[in-house]
Amino acid sequence: MRILDIVERTVPILTELKNARVDFSEMTATVVAVITDQFRDGRRVVGYAFNSFGRYACGGPLRERFIPRLMKAPAAEWIDPASGLPDPLQAVRMLLRREKAGADSERSMAVGTLELALWDIVGKLSGRPLYQVLAERFGLPDASLPRTLACYAGGGFYQSGNDLEKLDAEIRGYLDMGYTAVKIKTGGLRLADDLRRIEHALALLPDGSHLALDASCAFDRQQALAFAAAIAPYGLRWLEEPCEPGDLETYRAVSEAYPGRVAGGENLFCAQEVHNFLRYGPAPDRVVLQPDPPLAYGAGEFHRIVQTSVLQGVPLEHIVPHGGNMMSLHVAAGLGLGGAESYPGLFGPFGGFSNEIAVVDGRVNLPAAPGIGFEEQPALYAIFAQLSS
Amino acid sequence: MRILDIVERTVPILTELKNARVDFSEMTATVVAVITDQFRDGRRVVGYAFNSFGRYACGGPLRERFIPRLMKAPAAEWIDPASGLPDPLQAVRMLLRREKAGADSERSMAVGTLELALWDIVGKLSGRPLYQVLAERFGLPDASLPRTLACYAGGGFYQSGNDLEKLDAEIRGYLDMGYTAVKIKTGGLRLADDLRRIEHALALLPDGSHLALDASCAFDRQQALAFAAAIAPYGLRWLEEPCEPGDLETYRAVSEAYPGRVAGGENLFCAQEVHNFLRYGPAPDRVVLQPDPPLAYGAGEFHRIVQTSVLQGVPLEHIVPHGGNMMSLHVAAGLGLGGAESYPGLFGPFGGFSNEIAVVDGRVNLPAAPGIGFEEQPALYAIFAQLSS
Repeated sequence: MRILDIVERTVPILTELKNARVDFSEMTATVVAVITDQFRDGRRVVGYAFNSFGRYACGGPLRERFIPRLMKAPAAEWIDPASGLPDPLQAVRMLLRREKAGADSERSMAVGTLELALWDIVGKLSGRPLYQVLAERFGLPDASLPRTLACYAGGGFYQSGNDLEKLDAEIRGYLDMGYTAVKIKTGGLRLADDLRRIEHALALLPDGSHLALDASCAFDRQQALAFAAAIAPYGLRWLEEPCEPGDLETYRAVSEAYPGRVAGGENLFCAQEVHNFLRYGPAPDRVVLQPDPPLAYGAGEFHRIVQTSVLQGVPLEHIVPHGGNMMSLHVAAGLGLGGAESYPGLFGPFGGFSNEIAVVDGRVNLPAAPGIGFEEQPALYAIFAQLSS
Repeated sequence: MRILDIVERTVPILTELKNARVDFSEMTATVVAVITDQFRDGRRVVGYAFNSFGRYACGGPLRERFIPRLMKAPAAEWIDPASGLPDPLQAVRMLLRREKAGADSERSMAVGTLELALWDIVGKLSGRPLYQVLAERFGLPDASLPRTLACYAGGGFYQSGNDLEKLDAEIRGYLDMGYTAVKIKTGGLRLADDLRRIEHALALLPDGSHLALDASCAFDRQQALAFAAAIAPYGLRWLEEPCEPGDLETYRAVSEAYPGRVAGGENLFCAQEVHNFLRYGPAPDRVVLQPDPPLAYGAGEFHRIVQTSVLQGVPLEHIVPHGGNMMSLHVAAGLGLGGAESYPGLFGPFGGFSNEIAVVDGRVNLPAAPGIGFEEQPALYAIFAQLSS
């Protein structure tokens, strides 16, 4: 097979969402199409991916380094000779030649987005959904593949005007859809007001274990410890990103003081960063780990992240990829992880799953479409289709 | 004052240099010109900077986020009302609004390059070289400003064909120029061959304290410890980047086993990363710390880096900014640090200092030109001048 062209574009994510730290009014994402010379079922095989959201587009390094390197690479450097299919792990090794050590986040999003587009091609060429391809590649016994996956609804952003009323309606909506666990933003108001918001959400749920909080890195050490103490009585699902992702001393202090789980990882971009997070930060046996596959070099690096995390004592069921999209869903299912998140109705066409996915009792079924299956997610696919038309 | 336009360009750094890990054949840099409506001495005031070298250009985030934000910002957000001059620290705070926590290296180079171009404007508008402006802003008493600064020659890259002969000629050249201390690359050959290369260099120098080694992150833990043991008898100036920048356990192990100094920091991009490096990595009292100002958010963040480092026990004289250019020279002099490096004759127009700088007995004088003074570095200024013409 050959790559005919690789097209990328920066698209705005039109949203008025706000967390404790930032609003997303200028937010963009990068969408990528890797166009091949192959056909399946009368359709040209094109690999699609995007770089998650919440961080900005990564078109610079894609255009200036990684797309040209992939376009120029001889087949031997990224195609598996046995199968004739792309080998995304080998491709990443090739892409990273001539890259200096460190500064992972400067390139991990560009590389991860390309890597996932290559996995989409592998799935499409072999006629299987990506999670099955990943399970085989990384040695998860096929029999153990989960038929459904735990999934919670991420949302509860701060809204202007009638915030509590809107939060109420939003959570009821998630429960109506079939979700049983919900995550809301916190840390953006005075403590008393944030607690009122939490209690408002709790009133709609069976108990605290169905509600997670995301503080979006809002706190310094003293604030984080005070906040953790204040929410301890609720017995919540987890407290996410109480502080800056690099503030490992605060992570450790919170983890030592707080009886529940501390979550983090969407701002860690490679296995080494995750290793250090677990080595110096929160206690591995009480962490919920949430790196984001396309932001962190893709599914291959995610597998290394899982390996280093398990070695340090993180149970597989506490690894829950960030992202709320089909890529994270496949990675979670294919690597046998604890679950995925979902952003139903948020972040425009980039939020939510494909039409194949239904939520029942807090679990989602897995898709059958080959590859990632963005073709079954019409609003998002409309954006991808423009790239390759 | 007003900014009329901000122009950036990606330029290739044409070099065949190789270290233990990468060759630099595809290397690029970003050059920036911030064009103002002001004039001094009959010349339009334009702020210039580039993003150091060794990492690739950072035009993506500049074009998509940071240049538009600076162009759109009201004067109150980045001009000091008292002086009417740009306030680069305030400008950075404005630029980072709507940026998520973490992933510093994804933006620190774009922001740092703009920040230094703004400092260039401050220097030019106030008619003073940048190091004096920085010393005043960060409270270094003017009387204590060094009139000269320790400076070593960085080089000794691996060369194809007659490597040892070329190394010889290169080091003799540095000594002829007035340098007394030299740094060479290591870790790219079998140990015996690297030791031969080190002994070759030592033969030209008074003793080991005049030779530093840069392993360019080549080693894993076992290799790093073996290498450190092998070079211990030479009593060298320092061993730089024995391992990946994030491998803090190896840094610590080498620092505990090796009797000399361990250097690192060119791949750390903010004060938090430096804090963690010193907290978990090499012993602070025996480290040489080398972050690179435009790669790490600029001079303001460098000042925070110095503060957190001193608090953890790093002597000021062991902080030696990476980069080998006028920006690092001003930051080192302005913040009262231990010295600077230089790349005379390497990296084309981006290596070396301005015509004002002479080397005598391993020390350089400080420049008198206002701002950074790229105007006195003709080959580099020719590149900048194209941006603003």
